[in-house]
Amino acid sequence: MKKDLFDVNNVMQALKKCLPTEQGKIGLHEPHFGGNEWKYVKDCLDTGWVSSVGKYVDQFEQELAAYTGVKKAVAVVNGTAALHVALKLAGVIKDDEVIVPTLTFIATTNAITYCGAMPHFADSEERTLGLDPYKLAEYLKDITEVRDNSCFNKKTGRRIKAVVPMHTFGHPVDLDPLVEVCQRFKLELIEDAAESLGSFYKGRHTGNWGKLSTLSFNGNKTITTGGGGAILTNDEELGKMAKYITTTAKVPHKWNFYHDQIGFNYRLPNINAALGCAQLEQLPGFLARKRVLAQKYKACFSSVIGVDFFQEPAFAQSNYWLNALILEGSYKKYRDAILESTNNCGIMTRPVWILMHKLPMFLACPKMDVSVAEELENRIINIPSSVFL
Amino acid sequence: MKKDLFDVNNVMQALKKCLPTEQGKIGLHEPHFGGNEWKYVKDCLDTGWVSSVGKYVDQFEQELAAYTGVKKAVAVVNGTAALHVALKLAGVIKDDEVIVPTLTFIATTNAITYCGAMPHFADSEERTLGLDPYKLAEYLKDITEVRDNSCFNKKTGRRIKAVVPMHTFGHPVDLDPLVEVCQRFKLELIEDAAESLGSFYKGRHTGNWGKLSTLSFNGNKTITTGGGGAILTNDEELGKMAKYITTTAKVPHKWNFYHDQIGFNYRLPNINAALGCAQLEQLPGFLARKRVLAQKYKACFSSVIGVDFFQEPAFAQSNYWLNALILEGSYKKYRDAILESTNNCGIMTRPVWILMHKLPMFLACPKMDVSVAEELENRIINIPSSVFL
Repeated sequence: MKKDLFDVNNVMQALKKCLPTEQGKIGLHEPHFGGNEWKYVKDCLDTGWVSSVGKYVDQFEQELAAYTGVKKAVAVVNGTAALHVALKLAGVIKDDEVIVPTLTFIATTNAITYCGAMPHFADSEERTLGLDPYKLAEYLKDITEVRDNSCFNKKTGRRIKAVVPMHTFGHPVDLDPLVEVCQRFKLELIEDAAESLGSFYKGRHTGNWGKLSTLSFNGNKTITTGGGGAILTNDEELGKMAKYITTTAKVPHKWNFYHDQIGFNYRLPNINAALGCAQLEQLPGFLARKRVLAQKYKACFSSVIGVDFFQEPAFAQSNYWLNALILEGSYKKYRDAILESTNNCGIMTRPVWILMHKLPMFLACPKMDVSVAEELENRIINIPSSVFL
Repeated sequence: MKKDLFDVNNVMQALKKCLPTEQGKIGLHEPHFGGNEWKYVKDCLDTGWVSSVGKYVDQFEQELAAYTGVKKAVAVVNGTAALHVALKLAGVIKDDEVIVPTLTFIATTNAITYCGAMPHFADSEERTLGLDPYKLAEYLKDITEVRDNSCFNKKTGRRIKAVVPMHTFGHPVDLDPLVEVCQRFKLELIEDAAESLGSFYKGRHTGNWGKLSTLSFNGNKTITTGGGGAILTNDEELGKMAKYITTTAKVPHKWNFYHDQIGFNYRLPNINAALGCAQLEQLPGFLARKRVLAQKYKACFSSVIGVDFFQEPAFAQSNYWLNALILEGSYKKYRDAILESTNNCGIMTRPVWILMHKLPMFLACPKMDVSVAEELENRIINIPSSVFL
């Protein structure tokens, strides 16, 4: 019998080598306010412009669009709201199915249900931790039929309208083959780029491949607005519509309140956008520091048996939003011991999300073989990733 | 023929007598930050606690509950989100009907549609500008049938699940008879108290009569959090559930992400709650000043022919959130001339909302006779109401 060479202490030691543990408890991803945050927020208070209209909202949207290279960015209250509206504008309606990786955060899946649609779970690949486009293509070939320019699930009879990949921990999925799959099967692509602000696929920012894409600025993200998100699109008409229905869908008039469709009041307040403007100015510095930390982790874990530090796919430049260790398959049984010992000594770590198809409200949803995701679920450990570490 | 004694200039003169017009343009309702806003917001930035968990969220919720006298308050991103969750927790589901005044802001009606339910429009009364409980009772007697402890619309066959009165401009509807109607017809009562923080019905704060109630802290409200709202309830179990589903419905665990139902990620960020805490400290002062302004308006308009300054109903102490002039019926033709001339000279005024049953997305919804609301729609003009005026 082969000797088990795994030692939880080696993981602890490697982490301690990379982290300033003398400073006390180390969180997973904490915000850092080192720029104009206070100045801009104070400006909101001084001028009274704190609410749903204001110059920081406009500025934040323009700067987000410029940075990501899309034509239009619309700031909203959070990433979940952004996903809801993106799905709606992509044409997802009641009783549609939407392909989504089972290995994702709950928001991606919840947003599908807000449209009255049903998640249809897909597998991920080890290379990206995100949706596997090749395996998806094989699966869709088997179970779908394309007619009238739409894709139908032959088993359920429902239309499959869209695919929502999520760029896990900031690492881009393989977008080129995924775009091909979407074209071939007449599916709309919506990128959940909540975790990938600052991540590039083949030199271009994530969020540029989907018909619409979404960002998140929650407190644990690379930049934060307290709570916040954005819808990105290169379709100017959809961009205008996104702005319109994330307010109250009021037809402009000097005083009349005429609304011509259901709106969602998902507007990001100006005071939160002010925070976003200040954070965005620091993004290049944040990304540089995050790469330094990732390099440190890479070096420290290179000699630890049974654990790999997850690195960006070859086609990508990742933001390394949330750093991840991947246990080798035979050592996954140590996952909880590592989580216990690291958290107990003040280094916050966590496992990946429980797979979506296992949650009680999604048990009846259709799914493909998700064996890679099932294997990954027990092998991933996220480790501290704040920009100031 | 009776001589027309109305003169738009008299309205202008009365407004000018009450308002500091020498200071330039006067908005309808602008926020006022005269307390600890900077201090608390800066504390969030200094400590890094800006996002969805934090001491100001807890404090704001506790202080809101204490002030309004309810058992539990849950802070959320805005009043629309609060309504959505309140309706859901009151048991409103797909294909239900929900009674709502046609004279209300779009949020009340939109939130009903988020549940897949259908608005059923009711009339208002002149005394409160809100839902008329007596007229509603007569109507329900005709068109409904109560069986199995539920109320059914005999015409449409649909269940009528709830009634959502809205306390227009801060003036409480007549809650006692409305509670009776709800009990008699087995309907849940949800108070849309978005506009009525600081308004009392027979000595008790609005929001205490509904199974759940909602507040708004939008930029134009009596106190603001930038964007924000709250769910109020005296049912502790519902309060806990409101908190749970306005997050991601994650079962507490030291690291596992197990969600056991669909959540909505409607959390109010800590930085916005910080603003709310500072604003709430000033609420008694704000209300006192608003009463002074209302008294001024009352005095100045007492001698203007054809216009009444709207005063709180006899059973209520109102917050006078948004002051209103009511044109006498024969003078409603002057409404637009008044709006034109006031707005042109920098005194912002506005008409009431276009009635909900006239908006294109609600044309097919059931409604009772709404002739009082239709008359009021053309007679109301809101006038400047900021606390610092």
